[in-house]
Amino acid sequence: MAEAVRHDNTARQLRLLSDALDSGRLGPVRRLVHSLAPAEIGNLLESLPPDRRMVVWGLVDPDDDGEVLVHVGDEVRESLLADMDNDEIVAAVEDLDIDDLADLVDDLPDTVIDEVLKSMDRENRERLEQVLSYPEDTAGRLMNPDVVTVRADTTVDVVLRYLRLRGELPDHTDHLYVVNRRHQLMGWVALQALVTNEPGTPINRLIDDELTAIHVDDQADDVARRFSDHDWVSAPVVDNGNVLMGRITIDDVVDIIRGQAEHQALGAAGLDEDEDLFSPIRRAVRGRVVWLGVNLLTAFMAASVIGQFEVTLERIVALAVLMPIVAGIGGNAAVQVLTLMVRGIALGQVGPSNASILLWKELRVAAINGVLIGSVVGLVALAWFRDWMLSLVIASALLINFSAAALAGVLLPLLLKRMRVDPAVAGTVVVTAVTDIIGFFSFLGLATLILLR
Amino acid sequence: MAEAVRHDNTARQLRLLSDALDSGRLGPVRRLVHSLAPAEIGNLLESLPPDRRMVVWGLVDPDDDGEVLVHVGDEVRESLLADMDNDEIVAAVEDLDIDDLADLVDDLPDTVIDEVLKSMDRENRERLEQVLSYPEDTAGRLMNPDVVTVRADTTVDVVLRYLRLRGELPDHTDHLYVVNRRHQLMGWVALQALVTNEPGTPINRLIDDELTAIHVDDQADDVARRFSDHDWVSAPVVDNGNVLMGRITIDDVVDIIRGQAEHQALGAAGLDEDEDLFSPIRRAVRGRVVWLGVNLLTAFMAASVIGQFEVTLERIVALAVLMPIVAGIGGNAAVQVLTLMVRGIALGQVGPSNASILLWKELRVAAINGVLIGSVVGLVALAWFRDWMLSLVIASALLINFSAAALAGVLLPLLLKRMRVDPAVAGTVVVTAVTDIIGFFSFLGLATLILLR
Repeated sequence: MAEAVRHDNTARQLRLLSDALDSGRLGPVRRLVHSLAPAEIGNLLESLPPDRRMVVWGLVDPDDDGEVLVHVGDEVRESLLADMDNDEIVAAVEDLDIDDLADLVDDLPDTVIDEVLKSMDRENRERLEQVLSYPEDTAGRLMNPDVVTVRADTTVDVVLRYLRLRGELPDHTDHLYVVNRRHQLMGWVALQALVTNEPGTPINRLIDDELTAIHVDDQADDVARRFSDHDWVSAPVVDNGNVLMGRITIDDVVDIIRGQAEHQALGAAGLDEDEDLFSPIRRAVRGRVVWLGVNLLTAFMAASVIGQFEVTLERIVALAVLMPIVAGIGGNAAVQVLTLMVRGIALGQVGPSNASILLWKELRVAAINGVLIGSVVGLVALAWFRDWMLSLVIASALLINFSAAALAGVLLPLLLKRMRVDPAVAGTVVVTAVTDIIGFFSFLGLATLILLR
Repeated sequence: MAEAVRHDNTARQLRLLSDALDSGRLGPVRRLVHSLAPAEIGNLLESLPPDRRMVVWGLVDPDDDGEVLVHVGDEVRESLLADMDNDEIVAAVEDLDIDDLADLVDDLPDTVIDEVLKSMDRENRERLEQVLSYPEDTAGRLMNPDVVTVRADTTVDVVLRYLRLRGELPDHTDHLYVVNRRHQLMGWVALQALVTNEPGTPINRLIDDELTAIHVDDQADDVARRFSDHDWVSAPVVDNGNVLMGRITIDDVVDIIRGQAEHQALGAAGLDEDEDLFSPIRRAVRGRVVWLGVNLLTAFMAASVIGQFEVTLERIVALAVLMPIVAGIGGNAAVQVLTLMVRGIALGQVGPSNASILLWKELRVAAINGVLIGSVVGLVALAWFRDWMLSLVIASALLINFSAAALAGVLLPLLLKRMRVDPAVAGTVVVTAVTDIIGFFSFLGLATLILLR
């Protein structure tokens, strides 16, 4: 076999590819691309600016086209599809698994969908329509209807003979599903059990009927969690009548988990996780400006708070110098609490039953951090402006803002969650709006009360 | 089989558990806990405050103790271990898989480690020592040495007979590894191939020798990426001499991917991903105050920039009202660019070969967003303070700060990466420090030049 290839990561491939493209020699590029798995090609295409992306896309083995399309983000997929004529698209996607095809269908031109449906046999067409009938992000939409089933009243050697006749199994088949006459799920038998038990063993004795199947309506997040809690490689999907509809495999689950992580990381900055690194300018602007607008609104709210204290600011200019510190550090403290809460909510670890305990804990942490950070800032302010009272005002304002940060960090994500707004996406804007406003108000307000007397 | 259990998520379990604990009836708690998988129990324990956590921990089936310990974060694990005596710990961990045991070893008391090593046979002890000899986050440390190997010069029925004799296979065995006399990896044979091919088929004909094995020194991140690019369930690990050392399975990879996502989400807020929701106050303070201190430093830098313009601020107090808008929105824009870059770097999609193209794209996006947002803010400022020149100053400052945001957002993560600092962790502080400083400086500087003439 080939020597273990080390560090064959995208960055290196990218450099090689970039050098080859620079030199105009397409032969090495083609060889490199043909040596990659479809997911790796997808990753590579995403890392290329549009012109080069199209050159490389033209060099991909047409047999890989469909799988590559499955493995790129929506925006990049659109740009790749725009480069293909309908016949090419049909050829690329018609051999995909049903679940992958269902993933793509929204992005395909109607004429292509018609062609693909025509090229399928009736059974597969019906299966595809079935899968498409479930909402996105449900188990029904994720499942692959291609499953291998056996009956309970048979033996290992009969099953093995059946499998030899059947030939190749669907990818990631680690279990066969045991169904009754009405195709209801009775349990599953591990492939491992088939190869480690004597030929005469009744299937009945090898059935694991402890599994809780996935329901077609289950949410993708729940499915992912159950896979990782139970270390499944595949799991059966059933409908209300416990009829076996398909199965979900670990590769889909890995995609869900990666997708959640991207959604969280990008969503927190107001970005769409499908944003192409090389989006056309107009699209990138459109994608970001809305978010900046939302933040602008909160910035104006904070500014209007400051505006209430113009008289105070005119008389003590040091307040203008120091006020961003109060607001900024309060925001940092709030984001820390928020981040812990968002993780806890995502893992199902935080709910009404422990929210008050968490709030109490965070308030105590805030009190200590408020005193610590407040003292440091107070001392620096004292050294800078030589004003004991100013120093006391900023330290107190920081303590107040730390408490506000704890309150907002614990309560707002729970509130957002209840309002069905994703706290991972909206949380940061909301809590920092609170700490900006409370920060400016407490600092300038205390200053007005104490320093302007 | 059991009805498909829907929505059996942690939040619901948590409520049930909480009610049962409130009522003081431990029977239902024990039944609930016994019905859960170890990973689910771990999740549940993490969601409980310390006193309740210990009550529930006492009710866990001792057979599950070891697996539960594997599935909780470092901080929670420490609290659970503190509640057990040495004999209990030894009993809990001695039957764990080698890779899981290697995971725990750092947290176990020395006397326990000695006991566990004594209870193992020589082969397993050597295997554990081998695994522990590799650095954390490498394939060598992640692998499980328990692999099933076969020879190439045999047939399907011989292998099946061997497997029946051997009995149960290690979890997630989807391939058998083909090795030569010196235990060097020659390729692999899928379990699927064994059950779908005739008994007389030579193993030689079923070998897939195209695989590129994982090397013991490969980094965990690379391993995870290759698993998801190739849709592997398990993969062999070899040393420099291509000798088969063990295998890595998809469940470990799912843990790596989840860990990366947590590290990114929590790291960006300066948190340790092992932080317990219910950390003792002292520990929570210690974990967060360092990060707040770093942010405080950058806040003082920004404040000292403002301090340079005290004279200007004294004369035009509107500047103090508006300046946080310039800094804040610039920070939002920078974090958007940074987030895209961090993802691109993590996926290996961004490197020196395309950085300049990305920079040019982001500068153009920044120019357009700067003009758009600058105009809005300019008009609002005009309506508010009735001063055309002030309006022009803030719009220009915003345009400048958007450009700074694009530059910092693209270049700083690349620079941090080169300095071997994780841009996902340090990026936000650094880029917002830049936009704070440039924001205040450009706004107050332009105001001084233009408005104070």
